[in-house]
This record gives sequence, structure tokens and C-alpha cells, in this order.
Amino acid sequence: MTAIAFAGARLDRADAIRNDPERLASLMDWRARLLRLEGLDPQIGPDGGLVWGTLADAGAGSDLVFLGLLGGKGCFAEVPPQLAGGIAPYNPALWRALASMEQEDLAIYGAARSLVDWHARHRFCARCGSTTKLTKGGWQRTCDSCKAEHFPRVDPVTIMLVEHEGNVLLGRQPRFPPRRFSALAGFVEPGESIEEAVAREIFEEAGVVIRDVTYVASQPWPFPSQLMIGCHSHADDGAITIDEHELEEARWFTRAEVAEAMTGTEDGAFIAPPPHAVAHYLLKWWLEQ
Amino acid sequence: MTAIAFAGARLDRADAIRNDPERLASLMDWRARLLRLEGLDPQIGPDGGLVWGTLADAGAGSDLVFLGLLGGKGCFAEVPPQLAGGIAPYNPALWRALASMEQEDLAIYGAARSLVDWHARHRFCARCGSTTKLTKGGWQRTCDSCKAEHFPRVDPVTIMLVEHEGNVLLGRQPRFPPRRFSALAGFVEPGESIEEAVAREIFEEAGVVIRDVTYVASQPWPFPSQLMIGCHSHADDGAITIDEHELEEARWFTRAEVAEAMTGTEDGAFIAPPPHAVAHYLLKWWLEQ
Repeated sequence: MTAIAFAGARLDRADAIRNDPERLASLMDWRARLLRLEGLDPQIGPDGGLVWGTLADAGAGSDLVFLGLLGGKGCFAEVPPQLAGGIAPYNPALWRALASMEQEDLAIYGAARSLVDWHARHRFCARCGSTTKLTKGGWQRTCDSCKAEHFPRVDPVTIMLVEHEGNVLLGRQPRFPPRRFSALAGFVEPGESIEEAVAREIFEEAGVVIRDVTYVASQPWPFPSQLMIGCHSHADDGAITIDEHELEEARWFTRAEVAEAMTGTEDGAFIAPPPHAVAHYLLKWWLEQ
Repeated sequence: MTAIAFAGARLDRADAIRNDPERLASLMDWRARLLRLEGLDPQIGPDGGLVWGTLADAGAGSDLVFLGLLGGKGCFAEVPPQLAGGIAPYNPALWRALASMEQEDLAIYGAARSLVDWHARHRFCARCGSTTKLTKGGWQRTCDSCKAEHFPRVDPVTIMLVEHEGNVLLGRQPRFPPRRFSALAGFVEPGESIEEAVAREIFEEAGVVIRDVTYVASQPWPFPSQLMIGCHSHADDGAITIDEHELEEARWFTRAEVAEAMTGTEDGAFIAPPPHAVAHYLLKWWLEQ
């Protein structure tokens, strides 16, 4: 199997250093590396990889997030005082840049993007409305007034293949490029197990009742900070009733149709999800079963 | 296998109603049921189950969260204007109450607790500091000023058994009751897969390198809103170096020691995690392998 995009960073997160202001400060010298971003997008070097500068490249008034250690050097990312833009996973220039990147760079970039974005959108205390400050090397924000501690968000999302008579259920959202189909997905809600979230989402979106949920793989997805939890399940009844607020269409595809689409052709029954998506990984896994 | 505590609500979450103010309003009549809470703790009836009232029981100035439908009736929980207390999973009176509850009641209570607690701690906009309002039946808060949308938090946590030469690694945190040992656990961070979070946590907390992570089971844990992701893994080297900030002790236990502790005895090699914890489920699963 291919590796999962956005996982596999070789960075040592060095958790102990986050909690040790002296060690953290001692890392923030001329040897430290600063990941160069344009807003939330990566700067790309001539080799197609990430670009690293020094802390001197950080703008006035920026905060620094400690990403971890790479070859013993502290690696940081910058949270500028103003951050324009936001979630734009379908920015074609960004995706061309990501497509050229090595697995390890992609993983470092993903973690940095999620963290920088979280800081930019969480400058105030949700409990009391006061300003907050970046603390613990960027793995926390602390309220200036009520001292509440806030932590970077990771939102678990289930994404699932459903199988019925050897075919697989895929759907398309209105925002997808033409003819693209992908696995159904949805956020895990408070009070649900992964298995319950899978069953609820498939029933809500496609009216299909499923059984025998199994876990396949997981992926961090930095738009803005999902944990994609890839699962497989079975349906006894293939009748589909879509939720038209969520999906434009949902269909059962044969193994041959999936195999053809996964070659990358645009002439098959549908266009497969892109290689970086965990849905792509799930379909590849399914074909190999 | 026994059921997993806090999962298994028979409530229909009726997602479509949250997004339909008219349908939601039409449910909020004299037939609607209000889950009776004391702050975040449940009121317990003479039968040991949850107590339901009507919306007339809600206090002045309270907000209502739509939990879902039960027998066609709207079920709600109350977010009072002031909510004292907070996270107290080791409140003995609460745990005695939970121990008496049926699976389905426990699951409804867990979801309600997570939601009410989230609203009480997120009255302000993290983006701009303004006040926010409960919207979409309590499945969102919307900023009065910048209109940012905020969603209830679910924090994924990995919790894992590590196996080495047929023994299992368990640790104890200083806050545990005497002689209790449990599975190691830690939050999934931005930029990590589940498997990477498992490996990082075990290495950070116990200095043990693991391989072959497999998923076992998941559990919603409402103190305040974790998604516990239970895994299993293997270690080739049994040497342990604990992180003394996190753990007081970590040890390998034999299958016989685990089997004895899981009978509930306090005279074995250690005291097992309580039945509601997913760690208990993982150990039971392990013994049955």
C-alpha cells in the first residue's frame, strides 16, 4: 500500500520541551529553522520541497509555534498578527504544490498549517471573551483574564466504504469537480463511538443501513484540522435515498468501475478521489482485498 | 463482549431537524421532554434511570439543546445561564449514579453532558471575542458580531495496550486511586494519524518503541468530550523509562495477573480500571484473544 498523505513526519515533537520554557528559549537561536509560509500556504523550493529560513525571517509581532526537532534543531512556524484567507482545500495552485512534495514534507506542512490556522482563529477566550496568549510553544493558548487553557483542535471525521453485493457506495457533493465521486464522510459528534458515527452518517446521507463496521486507516487532514478515520462496512439492502442538502448523487460502483477510475483515467464510470485523500487509500485497499 | 459505556443511545439525532427552525420550534411544545440535570450531573429516578421533565422545568434565561427524538418526542437538555463546577470524572457520587444506569441512559446522559458543558464554556467567539448565541438546536454557536460558526468539540484520544512476550504494559497516574493501573493514553495532535499518536504517546510516557498498531474499539467519554480510540500494539524491547510528569509507575503484567484483577478483586497484583472505562473493555478483549 502507498503511504497516507500528511502522516509520516520524521520530526520529533519533543513534548517535554514545550513544557520547559528554558529549553524552549535555548532552542530559539540562530540555528533554529523557520518554515516559510505565505499565509497558510507553503513556499516551495526549486526541488519541490518546503523552504526553511531562520527566526530572523519572522515578521514583527508574529508568534512562533514550536513544531519539534529535526536533526537536533528547533523547527518553528510563524503565526502572523493578521492572517488572511482560511480554508481553501480546493485552491489549485496549493494542490499542485502539494502534489510535488515528499511524504515527510507534506506531514510537517500539514501539522504546521493546522496549528497556525488554529492560533489565527483562536485569539480570544471562548469562556470569557478576553484576549489569549500563545503558550507552551504554541500547543496551548492561555486566557489573559480568566486563565482558561485552550488546546489546538483535532476534529474526528469518519469516512467509509459501504459494500453491497460486491459493489461499493460512493457519493458526490455539489462542490466536487464534475464526475468525481468519493467515500461518504461526516464528523463524529459528542456521545458517539466511531462505529455509531459511521452508521448515522450513511443513513443520514444515503438512507442505507449498515452493519459490521471495521477500521481501515486514519489520516490527519489539515483543512483545517480533521482526523480522518477510514472504515469499511456492509449493507444488506442496496436502496439509496440521498439527503439532497449533502449529496448531489450516490451510487453503487462495481469493482471493475473502481479499478478503472483508480488508474487515473477521466473516461471511466467516475473520476476517483485524488491521491492525497484517504478515500483514495480506502478504495485502493478495497481493490486489494 | 460487554457493551461499551456511553455508546448505544437509542435516540434519533434527527440531524435534519437541527437545520430546520420551523420543525425544531414545532417540537418544543408540552410533549417535549427535558433531561433533568443538576449542573452537569444527572438527576436519578427511583429506578436508577434518568429523570425527564417538560420544557416548563427549564430555568429563566436557559438555552435548550436538542438531543434528538425518542418515540417521536423532542428531547432537550438545559444550558443554564451560570453553570458551576466542571470536569469531575472522579466525583464518587456521580460514579455511583452512573453505575446504576442502563446502557441507553448512560449514552443519552453522556452526549447531553458534553454538549451542555461545551455551551457553558464557549459563550464567546474565539475569533473576535464577542458574545455568541446557541444556534441549530445547540449543535452550533454563532458569533453575534463576526458571524463565525463554532461547533461542539470532540477530542480524539488514543488509549492502548502494548504487548511484549505475552505481557501487557499498564501505568498509573498520580491522581489514580491506590494500586489502580490502566492503559496509557494521550490526545491525538494536529498532523498525526491514530497510529502515530499511539507510538508517540507510548514512547513519551514509557520509553517503549512499538510496532503493528491495530484498532480495537472506540468510546465517547463525556469528561468533557473525548473520543477514546482503543488500540493494541507490540513492543520488541521491554525496557521501560517513564515520564515522571505523566506517570508514577508503569509495569508489564502477566495474563494471569490481568485475569485476576479483572475479576474485581482488590487483592491481586493491581486494581483494574473501572467497568465504564474503555481500558477495562480493552483488557477484557485482550484476555479473550
